[in-house]
Amino acid sequence: MAAFSFDKLVIFGVGLIGGSLARALRERGDVGGAREVVGVGRTAASTARALELNVIDRSAALDDDRSLAEALDGADIVLLAAPVAQTRPLLERIAPFLGGQTIITDAGSTKADVVAAARAVLGPASLQPPVDGARARRAHERLGQFVPGHPIAGREASGVEAALADLYVDRNVVLCPLPESRPATVARVADMWRAAGATVHEMAPPQHDRVLASVSHLPHVLAFAYIEQILQSQDAALRFAFASGGFRDFTRIAASSPEMWRDICIANRTALLEELDGYTAVLAALRAAIEAGDGAALEAVFARSRAARTDWQLRAARPAAAANGDSESSK
Amino acid sequence: MAAFSFDKLVIFGVGLIGGSLARALRERGDVGGAREVVGVGRTAASTARALELNVIDRSAALDDDRSLAEALDGADIVLLAAPVAQTRPLLERIAPFLGGQTIITDAGSTKADVVAAARAVLGPASLQPPVDGARARRAHERLGQFVPGHPIAGREASGVEAALADLYVDRNVVLCPLPESRPATVARVADMWRAAGATVHEMAPPQHDRVLASVSHLPHVLAFAYIEQILQSQDAALRFAFASGGFRDFTRIAASSPEMWRDICIANRTALLEELDGYTAVLAALRAAIEAGDGAALEAVFARSRAARTDWQLRAARPAAAANGDSESSK
Repeated sequence: MAAFSFDKLVIFGVGLIGGSLARALRERGDVGGAREVVGVGRTAASTARALELNVIDRSAALDDDRSLAEALDGADIVLLAAPVAQTRPLLERIAPFLGGQTIITDAGSTKADVVAAARAVLGPASLQPPVDGARARRAHERLGQFVPGHPIAGREASGVEAALADLYVDRNVVLCPLPESRPATVARVADMWRAAGATVHEMAPPQHDRVLASVSHLPHVLAFAYIEQILQSQDAALRFAFASGGFRDFTRIAASSPEMWRDICIANRTALLEELDGYTAVLAALRAAIEAGDGAALEAVFARSRAARTDWQLRAARPAAAANGDSESSK
Repeated sequence: MAAFSFDKLVIFGVGLIGGSLARALRERGDVGGAREVVGVGRTAASTARALELNVIDRSAALDDDRSLAEALDGADIVLLAAPVAQTRPLLERIAPFLGGQTIITDAGSTKADVVAAARAVLGPASLQPPVDGARARRAHERLGQFVPGHPIAGREASGVEAALADLYVDRNVVLCPLPESRPATVARVADMWRAAGATVHEMAPPQHDRVLASVSHLPHVLAFAYIEQILQSQDAALRFAFASGGFRDFTRIAASSPEMWRDICIANRTALLEELDGYTAVLAALRAAIEAGDGAALEAVFARSRAARTDWQLRAARPAAAANGDSESSK
């Protein structure tokens, strides 16, 4: 367990993801020091349940300037844990109140769009002319306060009631630092996730988005499409009635949040479309083999898939190892 | 628990499916009467493990005429539980030794091809001319001894070691009786599966094959294709390293037997191709919505899918109910 101390952590969006980090840092040992977790919701009401459950110490409301300013005053770290489409409006809302020592990170499932939003809102690109060197430098530094991140963890259940202190234990967190980020800033965000039990990796945003499009976003789209196809059939009820164990596991992710997955599909559309087209091509090849009755071709693909899936299962017990060519941050 | 008594049950292929029925009938109470379960393997060696595990009482070898004749002599019920592609050769091997009182059923995942094999091997179509009325009638009756069936149960694990006495408890078994079958013959096969704990339904073979293509065969193909696509990528190892819980469940069925799924894809190719084409069309529509950034269209599909999947999960605890329009056999 890594040590991580802070005086004030501010979480925007105290649902499953934000709430689980709050619980991890407040309930797991060894975080040390005086500390306070502030939860920010759209309105005061939206954080009431988090307060009731003792997941946060204090709450603030996004729609209230004074409440927001107080929340951000003296904050060590700000975590954006709202749906990824809200990243840019949130950054715009936060920027005027942001102190020079506060680190911002996020938990969004896509990263290239988050980086673009941060550049547009925090970086030199956000400045109205005339821009002098000093202003440009300050904007550059402000952009460097932001460390894009993605904890790869979740449950179908959502909301603060579903938050778990151990959600991140032995899970992977990917950070996508900007060239503008100072190493010490990145290290501090990494330490926070390690204190919650996670293993931390670094990737470039396009690499992150391609990998996640493949192993997470595509299967969600495939599972949603599969249920949709059954619903479009004439005998959907009969089909569902004879669905069994394989169906159950294959479709579990089709019960995920429609809003969240709508946002992810759009935010990561470039990488996702590439994976979708690759998948369609593989499926077309399998279709041709089925139509031709080419048992050898089918068996070859199925056997390769089974071997890879079985091998993955054996390795899945531990978090992503360094054996895969990504640049892991130092432990 | 339904009562079911027999003197001699002969199982061709004592693996997961055949072995589990043997264990259910031998180990679960209330089957009553003197009874014997004979396991038939390709060779004597292939049933040795089933004998060792006490799953069967006696074994016989398919490649030995005398052993096979002894096994089938006086058999009440014969269950074919070998991979579905072996149905026709098995029927051809068995036919010469089959007594007039023996019921034959099978456990294949597809039914139209099994019915065609039974008609070709057992029915009037099997007769060499000249065919007189008496011979035709006997062939008609012999065909009526066969009751196609499909227990919808399984595990990724295969082989007799994986056989479970309770594999069929609260699972669905579909029987696809032929017009030639006598009701008493069908009822006896249904009683056997009920004694193993299953709920028994009846469907016409094309309906069975369409439903199973949709809820079982298609997802297997989709999962195999998905792993194959990752393997074809440049950074497969990195992708696997960041795959998480959603991936795990979505791909579990990609660890299934390549031989078994090769056979099923080919045996049920007509129905499977129809489902595959329907799926590809739904996926193309989703692709267009993603490319257009049409969040409303995506969210509508995702929300419908989630609602249906959630509803299914709530109903899944109990076996298929009569609410779905299929003709259930009497309980």
